[in-house]
Parts: sequence; structure tokens; C-alpha cells
Amino acid sequence: MIKYDYRGVDSNIIGSEHGLNVQEEFNNYRDKISQIITDLYQHKDTPGQWLQWMNLAYTEETVWYVKEYASMVEGRFDNILVLGIGGSALGGLAMTEALLKPYWNFLTEEQRENYPRIFFLDNIDPDSVRGLLDVLDLKKTLVNVITKSGSTVETMAQYMIVKDLLEKELGDDYRKNIVATTDKQTGILRQLADQEGYKTFVIPDDVGGRFSVFTAVGLLPLALVGIDIDEVISGLKDIDAELQNTDINSNIAAQNALIHYLSDTQKGKKISVMMPYSSRLCYIPDWYIHLWAESLGKCVDNDGNLIHSGQTPLKAIGATDQYSQMQLYNEGPNDKIINFIRVEEFDNNLEIPKIFEYTGIGYLGGKTVNNLLDAEADSTRVTLSDNSRPTVLFTLPKIDGYHLAQLLYVLEMQTAIAGALYNINTFNQEGVEQAKNYTYALMGRSGYEESASEIQEKLGVNV
Amino acid sequence: MIKYDYRGVDSNIIGSEHGLNVQEEFNNYRDKISQIITDLYQHKDTPGQWLQWMNLAYTEETVWYVKEYASMVEGRFDNILVLGIGGSALGGLAMTEALLKPYWNFLTEEQRENYPRIFFLDNIDPDSVRGLLDVLDLKKTLVNVITKSGSTVETMAQYMIVKDLLEKELGDDYRKNIVATTDKQTGILRQLADQEGYKTFVIPDDVGGRFSVFTAVGLLPLALVGIDIDEVISGLKDIDAELQNTDINSNIAAQNALIHYLSDTQKGKKISVMMPYSSRLCYIPDWYIHLWAESLGKCVDNDGNLIHSGQTPLKAIGATDQYSQMQLYNEGPNDKIINFIRVEEFDNNLEIPKIFEYTGIGYLGGKTVNNLLDAEADSTRVTLSDNSRPTVLFTLPKIDGYHLAQLLYVLEMQTAIAGALYNINTFNQEGVEQAKNYTYALMGRSGYEESASEIQEKLGVNV
Repeated sequence: MIKYDYRGVDSNIIGSEHGLNVQEEFNNYRDKISQIITDLYQHKDTPGQWLQWMNLAYTEETVWYVKEYASMVEGRFDNILVLGIGGSALGGLAMTEALLKPYWNFLTEEQRENYPRIFFLDNIDPDSVRGLLDVLDLKKTLVNVITKSGSTVETMAQYMIVKDLLEKELGDDYRKNIVATTDKQTGILRQLADQEGYKTFVIPDDVGGRFSVFTAVGLLPLALVGIDIDEVISGLKDIDAELQNTDINSNIAAQNALIHYLSDTQKGKKISVMMPYSSRLCYIPDWYIHLWAESLGKCVDNDGNLIHSGQTPLKAIGATDQYSQMQLYNEGPNDKIINFIRVEEFDNNLEIPKIFEYTGIGYLGGKTVNNLLDAEADSTRVTLSDNSRPTVLFTLPKIDGYHLAQLLYVLEMQTAIAGALYNINTFNQEGVEQAKNYTYALMGRSGYEESASEIQEKLGVNV
Repeated sequence: MIKYDYRGVDSNIIGSEHGLNVQEEFNNYRDKISQIITDLYQHKDTPGQWLQWMNLAYTEETVWYVKEYASMVEGRFDNILVLGIGGSALGGLAMTEALLKPYWNFLTEEQRENYPRIFFLDNIDPDSVRGLLDVLDLKKTLVNVITKSGSTVETMAQYMIVKDLLEKELGDDYRKNIVATTDKQTGILRQLADQEGYKTFVIPDDVGGRFSVFTAVGLLPLALVGIDIDEVISGLKDIDAELQNTDINSNIAAQNALIHYLSDTQKGKKISVMMPYSSRLCYIPDWYIHLWAESLGKCVDNDGNLIHSGQTPLKAIGATDQYSQMQLYNEGPNDKIINFIRVEEFDNNLEIPKIFEYTGIGYLGGKTVNNLLDAEADSTRVTLSDNSRPTVLFTLPKIDGYHLAQLLYVLEMQTAIAGALYNINTFNQEGVEQAKNYTYALMGRSGYEESASEIQEKLGVNV
């Protein structure tokens, strides 16, 4: 089971200006937290509450269909190409990077046990799109296009380009190289997929993009490259059982939610850093940034008051970013709370050879880089603590589907609980609608002519 | 030449609560800025001022040696492996990612015109280190180990592992597969390199890691993969000529420095976002984060006053992060200034085919993804402006060595000028020393026993 340690935020250790009297706050908020958790679980099936992500541990049917399709196409493709952006890419990206052997796409077929390479195309930079399409043999590529609404303009533009190329290469057979993950009924992608006859997977109602990693959005890419998704679901079930506990003293998601909320609103910690000590976990912060930023960055609360809520989430990777950001964390404004993620046991134990024994680096010989990475994480955490900078620590016993699912679900639940503490709508994202409308206008979509003329006047944008 | 536009921060456009009366501020700070620039150029050769990075446009000798070595080893290696961390990795990483064809390491030898693939190993995660070493044929790999001090523990641990493996595979010949970039006289790496007989390159005195991209630290990896470093130096010379101008009205580095400084200290913009609309520029923000965070995050000013200065730099990539962070930027706390980077002309012009004409995505057909990316950037910038969020805009005519060098140098100069405005030491990083000492202690380096016992008591760290 994933572990959590909040001593680094306790006022006994870092002082009361920046630290919290954690046990006292747990007592103060005990009833409120209990109510929040009870409400979440009570409303998880209520339409329009966007809480269906809380049921994803129990969707045996989806898991079965994903596995069945993955096994059906096994051995048929050299590459998986995921077309998606935001929540349609980040979960799959973060989990495959963590769970596949490092440098997966550079391994031989044999080393990959015949599972395909996997690429996520999550931008529309013309050079990168062109570059990736040149690298892939599309005939041997399975394209998974993912968008719930079907109107995500970047993804649909990618899809149009790729579909056209596939059809030119494969004729009518191109349909077998496309699998769509989208809404069960509505949207253009659903319409086209049905019309064209693609295999499709459904993104359930009331699951937002940033909470969709355990739907087919995330599970299908995982299964296609040979990752055991039963293990993922098993971790999810076990952590869900833990997080149903309404007592904050036994619920780590509630604990970290409250600690973040109070650190933000009472101690000026406007930034939440996510810092795994592992390169394999390098996209976990990206996934968290989306989750935390989009869920909590809101301008009105549930009572209609104008607020501007939301910590800014920040990415750092240990040990690398000790050489980039740690100076600022230690000496700059004390405006951050830093989430360390540690791994207890790596797949490899890598020894530093006993060479250059009588030089200034001789002391490293015979140790492992595992020792070194641990020492770095401890040293950094203690130094931050010395400087009264708050930290919390998640520990994964190892990097596998079971524990990774637990980490992501804790962060999801923590986000939902934090949203309730801020008294905001955690599950909408109205702040990005205006820019989408402007984009439609600039691209000539009919019905948006008015904002096209509006945008032309601003900031010297010439259409 | 690189272009810069600050209208998005002007109070006429976003209002005076969050915007600046830019022209008035330029006038107010005209003399001070002029003095700062004059001082910087006057002291650039003064030992101990750490300003030698300002001379790197004029180090013909280094450029010559780098090119000579690169041409000598041309065709001999399949891979370049850079061992370095922080400033020893980020500049080379950011520039090669931008200047090489996208997905370079996946291209065939022919597509790469026989230039090698390139990998940066900037962490000591045991699984990733092991994974990369398994992927590379070390016999055909040139290892560039980079550390100025020679005591960077992560890099030296990597070096010890790789050197041992190389020697086992190649016998005495392994020396030809190692090239060291380090101090000209001092440090363990210098000592070992001379003793073992490696080819070496010098990191000049008084150039800090985060300002070292235009030394051999950055230039050698570029040259080894066939990038024209003369073009880089040419861009550097031309921008240096511009930035010697002491009039803020004609100096874009001074302009962005002042705008950031005032936005931080007067308008509460504690976060500086760097957001290129280009996947090829995806590591430019990482390089900038190191530069901005470590240079400006300081706890004392030059008069010994206790301060906690420094904006927190943040990474975002357009259009991707519109689907991740933009909700927060628009509706959350108005505590950010956002640096857009636009590219005028990409290498490719990628058309979206005219298909599905009578559906809701038909309007995209016949447009290019270039159009779309431009529309996204404009829409996002205007929306932020609508919400009174300050933005500035850098424009690169195209992504090449000439313009990229200009961008990086503007950001370096901007950092130096901002440091002078904050009245701090821009070039030290004392806030990371304590953690390094703790790490030495935990790893059993002699002379550090005392802090080992100290750290054991803190936060439950068990050694």
C-alpha cells in the first residue's frame, strides 16, 4: 500500500510561521472532512455531479473489453499512436512511462516481447507532427484517437491528417488501424467512428478528462503495450476501500487535501510542487498539474462569490532538479509546499564500481546509485525542513501498476476533497471556453464570425 | 533578429491593477538601467564577477577546437551520451531538441546523414541508468562527461559506472570513447582526465553552470550531432551588439527584466511562465527555469538584508498546456506573468485534408496546422488579456541556431539585469550547499561525519 508522511509540514518541526499544528487541524476539521467524504460517496452516482471516476475500480465490463481487444490485435502492430491532448493523453503517458521498461521505444522487438512501441502526439506543432509521421510506418501503426466531445480541434486536426494518410496507404483496410475512444452517443468523433466502422471505446458520462485515466482513455493504451491492467484495477480497489474511511486520521487523501488547503489559505503556500525521485515517474507531475490546476483554479465559489482560488502546481524531478530549482525553494519566497515521491525498491540495483579509490570520489565505490538517490532525497528534504519549508512525502513500495494506481487515485480524491474545502466546482473548466471560441473564429468555423472581428482589434492580432 | 512585444502587460490594455504603465516605467528606470548595463559590460572581465558568459560570442579558439574535434570523430560513433546535470545538461538538451530534426533518435542513419543519436543522462534513477546503458552499444558511443567542479556526485557516479563498462568492453582503447568538459586546472575530473589521457574541453573561469550553454558544455554536443555552431555564434554576436545598448527603449533584455521585476515587486506576479508554442522548443522552459530560479532565488541582498527574492519560473507548452494549466491562468490567482514564444515560420507547412466536409469539423479542411497553432496562440493571449493577466511575447522568425542563440542570450542578459534590480548576487547558489553536505555525509565521504549524525535525527531519516 502507498504510504504518506506529513511530518515535514508540522509546526513542531518547521515552526508555526510556515508549519501547521497538524493534529490540532485534523481535529478542527474532523467533522467537515467526514461530511465531505460522505457527500462524495453519496453522490457518486448522481447525474451531473461528475463523480463517476469514483466508480472506475468497479467497471469489470470495460476492463474485459479492453483486454479482449488488446489480445485480439496483439502482434499485429509495431506502433501505437495516441492522438489526444490534456486528459486524453496525460494519464496514459504518465502510466506507460512509469510501467514500461525505460527507453521502451528504443528496445528491440524481442526485448519488448513483441509488444508495440507507443507514441503520444499531444501537440499540433507542424514540425513535430510531420516528424513523427515520417518515423512511423503507418501500415503497422494502430491509431487511438481520443476525445470525449469529438470537437477537440487539435486532436481532430491530427486525426484528419492521419486518417487521410492511412487511407492512401491501406485503401479501405485503413479502418482496422483506427480505434476511437469517445462519448457513447454524442459528438463528431462518435458519429464518424460509427459511420466509418471503427472499433470504439466509451468514455463514461460524468467523468471529466482529468479524472479519466482509469477509463478506456488510459487503460486501452496500457493494455495495448502489454501492461497488466488487472493489477492497476486491483490497486485501485484496495485504495478506494481505504479512502472511503471518513475519519481524517485514517484517510491520506483527506490529510493531504487539508494540509494543502490550509497551507495555501493560511500560510501563503501558493505553489504545490510535485517531485518524484524517479525518472520513470517523470510525467506524474504533468498529470498532477492538469488535475490540480484545472480543478482548483476557479474565479467563483459555489455561493457565487468572486474568488480566485487555486494553488499553482509545479513539476520537479529528483535528483535532477536539485541542480535547477532547489536554490529557489530553499532561499526564495517561502510560498511552496513540496510533495516528495519516493520509491522504496527499484527494479534494478546498480552498483558504483570500486575504482579511483584513492581520489576524492573513491568513497562512492561499492555503494549503489540507489543509495545515492535515497541520500539525495533525504538530504534535500531535511535541508528544506532546516529552512522552514513545508514538505510531505509519498512512498511507493515499488513502481508497478498496483501502487501507481493508488498514487493517482489518492491525488484525484485529494483534489475532490480540496475542491469541497475551497467551496468551488471542482469539475468544470469554464475559463478555457473563451479561447476556444476565439480559435473557432480565427479558423473560420461558422457561427463564430463575431468574435473573429473582436479578436482582430486586440493586441495587434491580424487575421 | 528575435522580436519582443510587451503590449500584453501594458495598463492601457489590461488595466492598472495588474498592468504597468510601461513607457512611464521605462522613463523612471532609464538611468538605473543604463547604469546596470554599463556596469555589466565594464566588469565582464573582472575576475570573481562571474561575467565571462558575456564574452562567449568572441571565443573563436574554443569554437575552432570544438569543430576540429567534432570533424575528427565524425562517422566514428553511433551515439553521443552526455553525462551531466543542471547547467551541464540543460543547455545542450534544449538546443539539440530544438535544432535537430524532430524524433532525431528514431531516424535512420541515412536520415541523420550519419550523425549520431544523442542522449542526455541527467539523473541517477537506477532503472533509467540501467535502461539506457542496455540500449546503447557502448563500443559505438562517445561519452561526454561534463562537470566544472569534478565533484558533482551524480555525474561522477555515472562516469564511474560507464568508464568501468567501457573498459570491460574495449580494454585500453576505452579512452577514445570519453571526452571530458571541465575546469582547466582544478577538480577530480580534470585530474583523472589528464591521468587517463582523455580528450578534454575547458569550462572557462567565471562562467557559472547556468550561463554555460555557449561554452564547450553546450557547443560540443551540438557540433557532434552536426549542428552548425558558427551560426549559433553569429546569432550571439548580433544580439550582443544589440544588448550593449544602454537605452532601455532599445534593449529588449532590459525591458523584459524591468517588466518582470516590477510585475513581481509591485503587482504580485510571483510566477514567471515560459510558454513556447512549439514542441521543438519544449526544453527551453527547463533551461529558463534553472537560470531564473537559481539566479534570483536568494535570501540576502547585496547589503546583507534578509530578503527572500525570486519569481518561481514555470513551464508550459502551447498548444498542449491550454488543456492543462490555462484554466488556472485565466481564473485562478492573478499572480503570473506569461512569456509567450512564437515561431513565425516552421520548417514544415502541414495541411489538414479537405475531408468530412459536411460535418462539424469540415471547417478545418484546407487550413494548415500552422494556421491552427497560430490561432491558438492568439486566442490564448487575447483571452488572458481579457482577464487582465499580463503577457509578453517573443517571436523567433524561425527555429535555427542563429535565432535560438539570441533567445537564450536575451534571457541570460535579462537575468543579470533583473539580479541587479533586486540588488542580489545573481551568480552564486549557496542555498544548495547544505543538502550537498548532507549527501556527502550519508554517502560516507570522509570529513562529513558530523552532519551524518545530525541528519539521522531529523524527519525520521534512518541511515
